[in-house]
Order: sequence, then C-alpha cells, then structure tokens
Amino acid sequence: MVETGTASTRVDGGVRSIARAVEVLELFDVAHPIRQLRELVALTGLPKTTVVRLLATLESLGLIVDRGDSSYGPGPGFLRWVKLADSLWEVGAEARQIMSGLIDDCGETVNVYIRQGLNRIAIAQVEGTATVRSVVEVGVPYPLATGAAAKILLGGVSEEVLRDLVAQRSDLQLKPLRREVASIREAGYAVTHGERELGASAVAAPIVAADGRVIAALSMSGPTSRFTADRVGRYVDAVTAAAREISNAGLGPVEVFL
Amino acid sequence: MVETGTASTRVDGGVRSIARAVEVLELFDVAHPIRQLRELVALTGLPKTTVVRLLATLESLGLIVDRGDSSYGPGPGFLRWVKLADSLWEVGAEARQIMSGLIDDCGETVNVYIRQGLNRIAIAQVEGTATVRSVVEVGVPYPLATGAAAKILLGGVSEEVLRDLVAQRSDLQLKPLRREVASIREAGYAVTHGERELGASAVAAPIVAADGRVIAALSMSGPTSRFTADRVGRYVDAVTAAAREISNAGLGPVEVFL
Repeated sequence: MVETGTASTRVDGGVRSIARAVEVLELFDVAHPIRQLRELVALTGLPKTTVVRLLATLESLGLIVDRGDSSYGPGPGFLRWVKLADSLWEVGAEARQIMSGLIDDCGETVNVYIRQGLNRIAIAQVEGTATVRSVVEVGVPYPLATGAAAKILLGGVSEEVLRDLVAQRSDLQLKPLRREVASIREAGYAVTHGERELGASAVAAPIVAADGRVIAALSMSGPTSRFTADRVGRYVDAVTAAAREISNAGLGPVEVFL
Repeated sequence: MVETGTASTRVDGGVRSIARAVEVLELFDVAHPIRQLRELVALTGLPKTTVVRLLATLESLGLIVDRGDSSYGPGPGFLRWVKLADSLWEVGAEARQIMSGLIDDCGETVNVYIRQGLNRIAIAQVEGTATVRSVVEVGVPYPLATGAAAKILLGGVSEEVLRDLVAQRSDLQLKPLRREVASIREAGYAVTHGERELGASAVAAPIVAADGRVIAALSMSGPTSRFTADRVGRYVDAVTAAAREISNAGLGPVEVFL
C-alpha cells in the first residue's frame, strides 16, 4: 500500500521546474537507490530531454550522481541537509518507545504526522509486523483533507486554513468539513476506512503540547480487512492512550517547530 | 574560514530556478537552522518577491517550514532522503578511525573529497581541535580547479574532464594544468597555500581503489600560519600514510559510487 502523489501535482502555481526536480529526486528511495534514465522518463512522464536537463542541473548542484551508464543515484549534496533535518525533526527516544509499544500491542504501522501548510507529513514511523502492512514514506507530503491523521490535525487549525483547504479541493465543502472536524475533536480520535486509499484504514488521535494545542497526530494504519469491528475498539483505546502518553512525555526536539 | 560559492553561480545554463531554490536551502546549516526572511533576501541578493515565491514553493514540497513569524527552517521533507543519503554516502568505520588518528597526530581538520562532475564535495569530515580551523561543509560542491584535494582528484580524471574544466574557467590553461596534475600524481601528494582561499593551506593525498583508480582525496587543511615549513614534512608524511591505509581498508559503502 503505497500512495505516491507526485511532487508537481502538489504545487499550486509556484515554480514548476523546482517541483519537477523534487519529483525526480523523490523517485529515489531505499528500495530504488539507483534508477535508469528510461525508468525516470517513464515514471515522471516527462520528455526525455527534460529529464536529461533536470538530471544535469541536479548533478551540477551535487544532488544527483551520474554513474556513467545511464543510471543515476542521489548525490552527496544531500549530506549537508540530512544531518540538519535529522536533528531538527527528531522525535525523542521516549516518544519512539511509546510508538514501538503500540506495535507490540497491535502489530500495525504507527506514524506521527504533522501539518505543513495544506499537507501532512510523517516525521516518525515504526513499521508493522505483518507482510501486508501500511507503508507511507516519512518526509513525503500527503493530503491534509483525507485520512484519520488529517482529520485529527485539522482539529488544530484556524478557520483560515480550513477555508484554504476547501478552496483548493473541489471535493470538499466548508460546512460539513467544519462539522466533522469539530466532532472528531470532541471524540478525541478518528477512524477512517478507504478515505485516502481504497483498502486502507487508520485510527488516529491528537498529540497535544503543554498549552493544549494539537501539534501532531499519532496514527495506526493497515489493511481494512484487519481493522474489523471486533478489533477497532482495542485499536482506538491503544492509540488514544499512546497519544496521551506522548503528549505528556513530549515529542522531543522537533517540538520547537510545532 | 568558510567558502560559500553560491549554487546559482555553479549552474551553466540549466534551470535557474532550481539553482536558486538550492541556493536558498544552502543558507540553512547547523549554525543557522532558522533564518529570517530579510536575511534570506540579503544573503541571496534576490528580490524579496522572488525569495517569498521560492519559499512558498519549497514549503509546499515539505522542504521549508514557515515558522509564522517571517522565520524559516529546513522542512521535514528532507527526512525521506536521510536514510538513503546516509547509507549510500557512508564512509566506513575503519576509514573514519584513520581520519580521527590523523587529527590526534596533527590537530587539523581532515576531509575526504570526491569528484562530482566539475566540482569536489566533502563526504566525510573530522574537525580539527584548534579554535581557528578549517571549516568546509560536507555535501557542498567546491571548485575542482583549486586547492590540494582538487589537484589530487584531477590526477584521476580523463583528458575530457580536464578540457571541460579549462573551458569553464578563464583562469586556467590546459597545458600548465595538465603538467601540474601529472607532477602531483607522480609526487603522490599536493600542498597548496591560499589557492582556493587567502590564508588557507592544505595537504592532500589520493585514496585509490583496488584497481588503482583515484576515487577520493584525503585532505588536511587549516590556517597557512600553522602549515609552516618545519611542520609540512610531518603533515605530508601523515596524510600520505593515512591515505594509503584508507586505500587498503576501503572507503566503505560509498565506494560503489566511485
């Protein structure tokens, strides 16, 4: 279960070439550290000349390495930011331990999501134990409109953000969204099935700062076939309890940004 | 001693907006994890409207976080590359230990540089012990034409790369450069003073693969005032010995790219 919204579709206006460059860079991951030029052309859907030009630009910036046989990898230029981002966006040991405890109890993938503009991004993840499991990528923007974690995060936003989100998406209406978000906020958790992706379910609860603000969402997700009526009560209990524990312990260094 | 060639001056043709975006991102480092908008405008020399547009684009891609008070930081979007870049560009424990030994002996900053196109990039660093010490940034492209590490790396390139480099820089001529590079290759080390930056000196030696190719340069650098005649012999001995040791031990996982 992998959802990959491409970077360029996430940009409203903005500088298209930057989005395209990020889109190319996003095609490299732990499973695909090296890509052939033809793969990059096929996966981006961009003309070959455009991809070649993007790769040359990224290579000159140290962000792509040309291996010389029409295959490419992420360049050493990333090193300067990964150390920085890793330390800035670090989720503390205590919070991670609570996440791991949740996996021990329920076996499904656990993520901490934060809001970034009109997106949500997982900043920490512990993967589930089953073969068929939820896999989202840490650091990749996903829609703020759909999924349990999104609904929890929306409980912490201003009316202005809700309006911007509705303006961006033709499938949303302000009044019902506002009502749903308020109800979820009152309930203290959200359960969604197939809202973001067919066959995927999730349970999420808010992580709050000392001043009561919703700063993140703790989410447990997996195949709908395992998020059954007889299990969901236990999942909701476990996720809300863990989110409360993390709220008390603090999220760690990353909190200065939230 | 920090040299910061800006990203956009390193792009020949290419997509300028990508280079500008990288230039903005490069302004964030461990010493400056947060930057004010006015700093970003001043440091890039770009119009404020351009910087604001770049920041908005980068924010929508998760690469910049807007802290809401006209201050910005690197976004959580970098997290997706952390595991990848770290594992791909990893210099092995044995090589790092040899680098640390060099610091114990001489006290000056040690870097491993690799060539990327017409640039060189430090992929590993151990900082020196003195207050005034050489600081280059890991992952940032520096010129391939100047400095001891550059001259060592040029000993491993094809005639074509030399020609491209000369074509790019009006201050270089092919014949003298070729002669210098061949001499340095024969000597097995390079010593430079103020070549890349006034007041900065360096000693470098080649790290070679099992097949004899120059894959990296081991460099020790610091203020010219400490790279004196009575010390340089010891420095050259120490750096060439350590480079030989690293060549025998191997650079670690990163070697597959070199």
